Amino acid sequence: MDVSYLIGLFATVTFSVTGVLAARAHNMDLVGIIVVGVVTAVGGGTIRDMILAVPVFWVADANYLLAAVAAAVATFLARDRIQRRMQWLLYLDALGVAMFASLAVVKSLDLGLGAAPALVMGVITGIGGGIIRDLLTGRPTLIMSRDLYATPILFGVAVQLLLLRMPGVDPALATVIGGALIFGSRSAAVFFHWQMPDILTLPGGDS
Amino acid sequence: MDVSYLIGLFATVTFSVTGVLAARAHNMDLVGIIVVGVVTAVGGGTIRDMILAVPVFWVADANYLLAAVAAAVATFLARDRIQRRMQWLLYLDALGVAMFASLAVVKSLDLGLGAAPALVMGVITGIGGGIIRDLLTGRPTLIMSRDLYATPILFGVAVQLLLLRMPGVDPALATVIGGALIFGSRSAAVFFHWQMPDILTLPGGDS
Amino acid sequence: MDVSYLIGLFATVTFSVTGVLAARAHNMDLVGIIVVGVVTAVGGGTIRDMILAVPVFWVADANYLLAAVAAAVATFLARDRIQRRMQWLLYLDALGVAMFASLAVVKSLDLGLGAAPALVMGVITGIGGGIIRDLLTGRPTLIMSRDLYATPILFGVAVQLLLLRMPGVDPALATVIGGALIFGSRSAAVFFHWQMPDILTLPGGDS
Repeated sequence: MDVSYLIGLFATVTFSVTGVLAARAHNMDLVGIIVVGVVTAVGGGTIRDMILAVPVFWVADANYLLAAVAAAVATFLARDRIQRRMQWLLYLDALGVAMFASLAVVKSLDLGLGAAPALVMGVITGIGGGIIRDLLTGRPTLIMSRDLYATPILFGVAVQLLLLRMPGVDPALATVIGGALIFGSRSAAVFFHWQMPDILTLPGGDS
Repeated sequence: MDVSYLIGLFATVTFSVTGVLAARAHNMDLVGIIVVGVVTAVGGGTIRDMILAVPVFWVADANYLLAAVAAAVATFLARDRIQRRMQWLLYLDALGVAMFASLAVVKSLDLGLGAAPALVMGVITGIGGGIIRDLLTGRPTLIMSRDLYATPILFGVAVQLLLLRMPGVDPALATVIGGALIFGSRSAAVFFHWQMPDILTLPGGDS
Repeated sequence: MDVSYLIGLFATVTFSVTGVLAARAHNMDLVGIIVVGVVTAVGGGTIRDMILAVPVFWVADANYLLAAVAAAVATFLARDRIQRRMQWLLYLDALGVAMFASLAVVKSLDLGLGAAPALVMGVITGIGGGIIRDLLTGRPTLIMSRDLYATPILFGVAVQLLLLRMPGVDPALATVIGGALIFGSRSAAVFFHWQMPDILTLPGGDS
């Protein structure tokens, strides 16, 4: 049981928690809640593994499913206490995204992918579960928001890939730096309410 | 041509019929209707096979496609007569769900999956097509409803898995019992308007 | 570098352009726009390759990703000039659909699929990216419209498959004719505002 395994489990738990809380205003029953929690937790990685044509991670190791279900049930039970700390959860979500995305890059490179597809796999793994959650619960997808969500992933993963190309850089260190940059920039975006400058944004309006 | 093959074709037809009727208020043309019918019929099994990394069932055997298309067209033609029997269709849908889910568990176990992933595959196969149908037609997904839909699947598949673990139980019998429990509990939920008790439900409201 | 490779790249660019423009009323930032452009461009082909169990095309060859990103950024920059030519874009989109769908049929047949699954793969490749785009951006999916979109694909691909079965017909010619029929009939539907006759359409209304 290595460190990246534990990190993956921890990220699974954080995604399940945030998935359940995102769904909480929807008059859902416990089974629906568990479905949303599990899908949010494992959805991105499932798409990643299907595209990579490797065995889907939770089929080979049921611990991910058990962790996601346990986290969803615990979140349901403790929802009143947790809801008062919603802001805090955005940072937990940022941590999960950072871990999933940077590990997905490692997995993709290990399978022989080039830098561009590996970067895409990082983004898919980071945002896939959240997008499926939004679709299942009828919310605007996170892509539709001006909140910076995909951008920090793109930024951190790009740095990670650059570092991995540099001779003499420890791959583990590059991955930790990539993940830390995702977490740090996403957290800063949450804390300071960063948005893309208007010049990089399409004005809303009639289509 | 064995019994489970015929059951699979029958479930495909029932899902195509219910998919077309779910889409019927949407001003769709016949081709759109066929697409929705086919996607509802084969969507869950397609996701199942992609996750299991086995050949997708309708690629290897076009009979499933032909059955789904024929059922969609027939439903379009007979829609006025069928719409007066909508309640009856919920039981037909329950039957399709029961057959797809319990057979998916058998297929998953045959491929060496553990109990937890096999249970998830049963749920995915049972609700996957319906969720894609809801997304395509812009309806709230079936996960968002307090109707018991995923719960009967979870219940029947769990019993099926328990029975399959018990020594001396005929696997075919365990599968039939699992399917019958899904069909029976879903039908009872429809007939008696069962919902989850409030204590197992998130109150709707502001998020 | 053969002709079908260049055609695939060109279709990728056209889909990315139309994906970005479809999303343009949504107050999205540049990163979201790139995500939508790329997903629209490669989404249909990704589902096709996952169902066919072959390596996903953009994993093996990053040029598709680079083309989609470049097209999305260029469309963002030139959006004011492009928006005045929106009608023109529907024909560009029709061209992309025609190329993707007819090439998907060839790929499917080369892998040993029968005519019915190959036809479905053509439709999936033609409309898959657009449907994911609609879901991500919260628009009614293209299936929900009475515009003829899937119908021209079905028509052209069916003729292509018939021609490929006839002895003495050059496969390349059959593919070109199939693609031309898709493009021609979709363009005519756009130009003349064709819709399915009422008798082949479900009346909208209460469900």
